[in-house]
Amino acid sequence: MANITKKVSWSSRGDESGGGERTPLLNGSEEVRYTRQLSGDGGMFHIGRLSTVDLEEDMTSDEVNSIDCVKVNRFVFQSLDYDNSENQLFLEEERRMSFLGFKCLEISRWVICGLIGFLTGLIACCIDIAVENLAGVKYFVVKQNIEKFTEVGGLSISLILWAVLNAAFVMVGAIIVAFFEPGAAGSGIPQIKCYLNGVKIPRVVRLKTLVVKVCGVICSVAGGLAVGKEGPMIHSGAVVAAGVSQGRSTSLKKDFKIFEYFRRDTEKRDFVSAGAAAGVSAAFGAPVGGVLFSLEEGASFWNQMLTWRIFFASMISTFTLNFFLSIYNKKPGDLSSPGLINFGRFESDSVAYNLYEIPLFIVMGAAGGLLGALFNILNYWLTIFRIRYVHRPCLQVMEAMLVGAVTATVSFAMIYFSNDCQPLGPDQSEDYPLQLFCADGEYNSMATAFFNTPERSVRSLFHNPPGSYNPLTLSLFTLTYFFLACWTYGLTVSAGVFIPSLLIGAAWGRLFGILLASITPDGSIWADPGKYALIGAAAQLGGIVRMTLSLTVIMVEATGNVTYGLPIMLVLLTAKIVGDYFVEGLYDIHIKLQSVPFLHLEAPATSHWLTAREVMSAPVTCFNRIEKVGTIVDVLSNTSTNHNGFPVVVPVAASDDMGKVCGLILRSQLIVLLKHKVFVELARSRLTQRKLQLKDFRDAYPRFPPIQSIHVSQDERECMMDLTEFMNPTPYTVPQETSLPRVFKLFRALGLRHLVVVDSENRVVGLVTRKDLARYHLGKHGLEEMQLAQT
Amino acid sequence: MANITKKVSWSSRGDESGGGERTPLLNGSEEVRYTRQLSGDGGMFHIGRLSTVDLEEDMTSDEVNSIDCVKVNRFVFQSLDYDNSENQLFLEEERRMSFLGFKCLEISRWVICGLIGFLTGLIACCIDIAVENLAGVKYFVVKQNIEKFTEVGGLSISLILWAVLNAAFVMVGAIIVAFFEPGAAGSGIPQIKCYLNGVKIPRVVRLKTLVVKVCGVICSVAGGLAVGKEGPMIHSGAVVAAGVSQGRSTSLKKDFKIFEYFRRDTEKRDFVSAGAAAGVSAAFGAPVGGVLFSLEEGASFWNQMLTWRIFFASMISTFTLNFFLSIYNKKPGDLSSPGLINFGRFESDSVAYNLYEIPLFIVMGAAGGLLGALFNILNYWLTIFRIRYVHRPCLQVMEAMLVGAVTATVSFAMIYFSNDCQPLGPDQSEDYPLQLFCADGEYNSMATAFFNTPERSVRSLFHNPPGSYNPLTLSLFTLTYFFLACWTYGLTVSAGVFIPSLLIGAAWGRLFGILLASITPDGSIWADPGKYALIGAAAQLGGIVRMTLSLTVIMVEATGNVTYGLPIMLVLLTAKIVGDYFVEGLYDIHIKLQSVPFLHLEAPATSHWLTAREVMSAPVTCFNRIEKVGTIVDVLSNTSTNHNGFPVVVPVAASDDMGKVCGLILRSQLIVLLKHKVFVELARSRLTQRKLQLKDFRDAYPRFPPIQSIHVSQDERECMMDLTEFMNPTPYTVPQETSLPRVFKLFRALGLRHLVVVDSENRVVGLVTRKDLARYHLGKHGLEEMQLAQT
Repeated sequence: MANITKKVSWSSRGDESGGGERTPLLNGSEEVRYTRQLSGDGGMFHIGRLSTVDLEEDMTSDEVNSIDCVKVNRFVFQSLDYDNSENQLFLEEERRMSFLGFKCLEISRWVICGLIGFLTGLIACCIDIAVENLAGVKYFVVKQNIEKFTEVGGLSISLILWAVLNAAFVMVGAIIVAFFEPGAAGSGIPQIKCYLNGVKIPRVVRLKTLVVKVCGVICSVAGGLAVGKEGPMIHSGAVVAAGVSQGRSTSLKKDFKIFEYFRRDTEKRDFVSAGAAAGVSAAFGAPVGGVLFSLEEGASFWNQMLTWRIFFASMISTFTLNFFLSIYNKKPGDLSSPGLINFGRFESDSVAYNLYEIPLFIVMGAAGGLLGALFNILNYWLTIFRIRYVHRPCLQVMEAMLVGAVTATVSFAMIYFSNDCQPLGPDQSEDYPLQLFCADGEYNSMATAFFNTPERSVRSLFHNPPGSYNPLTLSLFTLTYFFLACWTYGLTVSAGVFIPSLLIGAAWGRLFGILLASITPDGSIWADPGKYALIGAAAQLGGIVRMTLSLTVIMVEATGNVTYGLPIMLVLLTAKIVGDYFVEGLYDIHIKLQSVPFLHLEAPATSHWLTAREVMSAPVTCFNRIEKVGTIVDVLSNTSTNHNGFPVVVPVAASDDMGKVCGLILRSQLIVLLKHKVFVELARSRLTQRKLQLKDFRDAYPRFPPIQSIHVSQDERECMMDLTEFMNPTPYTVPQETSLPRVFKLFRALGLRHLVVVDSENRVVGLVTRKDLARYHLGKHGLEEMQLAQT
Repeated sequence: MANITKKVSWSSRGDESGGGERTPLLNGSEEVRYTRQLSGDGGMFHIGRLSTVDLEEDMTSDEVNSIDCVKVNRFVFQSLDYDNSENQLFLEEERRMSFLGFKCLEISRWVICGLIGFLTGLIACCIDIAVENLAGVKYFVVKQNIEKFTEVGGLSISLILWAVLNAAFVMVGAIIVAFFEPGAAGSGIPQIKCYLNGVKIPRVVRLKTLVVKVCGVICSVAGGLAVGKEGPMIHSGAVVAAGVSQGRSTSLKKDFKIFEYFRRDTEKRDFVSAGAAAGVSAAFGAPVGGVLFSLEEGASFWNQMLTWRIFFASMISTFTLNFFLSIYNKKPGDLSSPGLINFGRFESDSVAYNLYEIPLFIVMGAAGGLLGALFNILNYWLTIFRIRYVHRPCLQVMEAMLVGAVTATVSFAMIYFSNDCQPLGPDQSEDYPLQLFCADGEYNSMATAFFNTPERSVRSLFHNPPGSYNPLTLSLFTLTYFFLACWTYGLTVSAGVFIPSLLIGAAWGRLFGILLASITPDGSIWADPGKYALIGAAAQLGGIVRMTLSLTVIMVEATGNVTYGLPIMLVLLTAKIVGDYFVEGLYDIHIKLQSVPFLHLEAPATSHWLTAREVMSAPVTCFNRIEKVGTIVDVLSNTSTNHNGFPVVVPVAASDDMGKVCGLILRSQLIVLLKHKVFVELARSRLTQRKLQLKDFRDAYPRFPPIQSIHVSQDERECMMDLTEFMNPTPYTVPQETSLPRVFKLFRALGLRHLVVVDSENRVVGLVTRKDLARYHLGKHGLEEMQLAQT
């Protein structure tokens, strides 16, 4: 009955008990706590193989061996069980529940979403205030110091002070990330994308990750890196959602005994999408943008009631942030400027655009696409390099510190050698105007871009009056910041790429605007540099991350003016089309580098000739309705397979070995059954035994114990287990002739984890899992099969 | 084999050949060309039965009989085949197609979306210009007349002139709708909702409907009815999309031989959603709102590439409208104020809101919900009345004319008796300031609300400075306009309810603001009446139509300022919650009144105890792989059943009558096969016979001939047909124990039309269609089964 020749599902069970869980780091850095034991059956896996750049060609086999331990991706991705297991227990519970019960559940969902929004907003507020104050102190100290030494000479001391301060902040941030929770590195958006796609990345929604993420992002932004605090907000929102919706913290061993109904993947994933939306909403003050972000990333499994709840969470999140910041800013109750980043208000009169500007916008979009692709390719190479050579935590911390110090040095050099002095107007809004070598009443224009938090620099580029920057300043700034940002993304610090992208784009956009104004006779009327800065920012960001719909709305909401809706859309679409021609978006690159079985939107176009028979994993390990405990334990203990779902079959009379499918049972369910010793014999002898309830499954969720921790005696191995009550009696099945696109559609639309393939007699012939579908993709030479994380 | 005891699918085939096609009118009016012959098997069906108000209780049986013919809903709703029939022809074509071929298809899709956007924008532009000019002439003439008679007395002549002009315009609009294309009545939004939901409403996307709709809406707005031109734009966009995407016009008998690949329901529906979005986008200048509208209404079957194309269509649509209007307004190229309705710019300084205003907004939302519910209930009763008594076209035209005349009379009376005179400022933006009995240099304030197109009135309410209206004027206006709008919606004219709703809300919102300012000591600072007018407008509109997400974005985009995003969201959510407590949204009421099998988002919460076995239709008419032509013709000709899909089965050896399912074939496919005489015997005799291709099916789409029009001789009846090549070999199946929510989820997520229910041996036991699922809904006493359109 139990044929095990090929993996049919992928899980970490074996690894967890064996060599310790590994965390895949989608920012490209690598954890060091790897295990040396490689499974024999092709578990070794080279990253180079799935990339467009084949790295192995120029390596000797020694080199290959030496980095095996790093390159092997024995990561522990699991699929989410988005399909409810409608077993008898579940149906009984649902049937017992009254209409009022369902109403209560619905209200709970709204309450949870409100809580998620509130807490996410609160976290955003804390981050903002902390960053403002830390960066304020830092810039104040450095400014004092520079002013002191400008006259007397010895500015190198100021430089050292600045660099040391930066490196110190960055060090703290890097240490907590590298040593305590590597999963908190990067922006977290790739991880959340994967989660919403249906892949569970270990430890990504834990409390510890949240704490490290929040502290990390404060340190890295205060440390003056070319990073933003917006990406991490999205991750934070998701963690908050995963925590709040479960009514308990597994890490803190605290169970509030509430929201127990929601302790399953189906419900949790819904809340996580609300959390991500709340994060976007808090980061950019863009509640609708947040909803669209969740939609764009988690486009399948969508429903309308969920959309409304997500919307509610986003709304509360912006509102909370807004409210607390208004109190902090001593204007309590003034709620008109939400979001961590505020692009400032674009006044309508100055921003009107004209038809003949549209081609210019499209050109800028294309430029953004090109620059974005360049950014992504450089970052890809850098990430490959990091995966190979910078994988120890201490090395990672040192690299981060180095980047921090270099950022300060480069900034200082740029400011020092710049001679772009601007008059300090009466309505001067510069926070730290550096006079340096400028005349009295003037300030160094380069410093407004470098000597500031990136958010403020963006705002200056958008809103400072024409003439605030000269073209040379802008081009130098663009050039240096581009490479700094590219180097920074993927460091072992918690940081986002949104703001640096916007900043690069705003700089060259403004440059473009200035040049345009200079070549047109009376161009100053329509070539407002701030407008072009905004368009450039959109183009650059679009070229790097390749989102369109949600990004348009986010930009529109952040500028507080819909006039630019159309040009921003056009620019983002152009940037996406141009960029996609060269390379994927930054997040997708990092997802691919980890060979996450990420399901794209549709099956590859030319895959109609593939059928379920060719795609599926076969033969499949099946169980009988009433199965011997020993068999079950043996199958579950088999570390070389780690199946996660098992069809339950009824043997066919005229027996060949495959039975008719009558259900599907999950590893997690079997584990709980074994733990509670739900054996037929015991039930007979102990008549009063408590019946297993759904609660027992929910209590074990989401960290089901590994099979090794469950003791089954030799006597018990001879017992029988009746699976009928616990299996899902109506798993989705497809005939084996079904085409891949059809299978894909079913799988993706319903968010399945296992799809049973049957023959015309309803006998099990195979099982389709996420990995079977994710490995096909459309390459340059038609359909290609790629290798995915081996787990 | 062919057991026909219960209807398993619903179609119009029989009716088309029999008593003439009937058009369901979702605006509540009724077509007169009904047929008297009622089918014996319960085809009679009372509307009252499915409504919350049981109308039959107070009627004698005579009365019931006398209106039978009106009440019988033998409408012709068909389901869309959103699931591709992946038969051998299709798979062969897909396999033959190269990667480049798919690229070309993708590009075609973008081109079509661009065209849809362009044409929709153009239509919007025509409507706008026509309405502006016609209304301009009308108001000019009436104003001249009033001014002439104000001094000398005899204003009743002016009144008559106004009433006659109104009635004349309305008459033209009503005549073309009532006599030529009743499907063009109303806003068209319910029809588009149904279409996106997967129900095909006959004639709803035809060219004739578009022409009548456009002319109709021009007449009704110019005729001074309490209507808007925005709803019809959405319908127009959808029709444009359905036409353009097919590359031919069936009505005009013109085939451009392009886009043939898209001639099937799957593709067409995608384009229609883009068209609807383009319509919204053109109507409100809200491209993102348009996308969200399509999302909110067609939430299932969603995918991301489609979203982007819809976005593109919306963008082009706004852009086109904007561009042509800018030329018309003599400011070519100035693209900064898009949309048919423009709420005018809310300047940021004047519109800041504060925390303590939030409760006020929520109160206004609740008020909007209440008033909306009242509006809906009144309109519901009115619609019932109309269905019973006003069902002849001439009666309908007369009612419309009456409403037109009454609107003029009431307006005139209100203006006449109003003594709210306001000084005519230097920056006066009134288009037709009526002095009437006011002093020189003053104008009648009531006239700005009544003597104007509703769009302009809305803008005046939003933007006129505080003090422009006195409270009495506003309350009288609210009261009269509320009832006028309620009476107007459902008339046999082409018109929307968005603008009247906004206008009512703006009026009482402004009133609220004024009252607020008067009771607060120095309230004038924050209680800007324009702000409250906006909130009131959102509340009222939300209370009537109950959309949240899309409406928020539409409102935000139309005001051109995101500051109000949060309050508008809150208000819309509150209005929805409060309103839903009493009655459904206006569109849903009208959909329900036509008993359209509309699938809601999710299965009713308490339906877990229902299984596929109880829900399905059984027994099912099945065919063999190789079936006798006579049998097929007989089944298709059976007018009492009108099945649309037939499982194809392989007989089981130990035969009871049900075979194992091996495919599914549609009526439309069988019709084409019969028409081309694809019989086994003929194929043998005529070896060179052209093989049937997908093109033959596409050419017949979407108006497949009725079976009666196909002549099959007695000899041919004895031939056999091989269905193997044409059937869908892998239809989705579910076991009969599957719970209703699970069936529902599968059905809705994949947009199915037929779902085969099988037993454990894979034998057909039943068929689930849209109607089987749509009839369950959650009533006040738990799960209720309702009766749906009998076809």
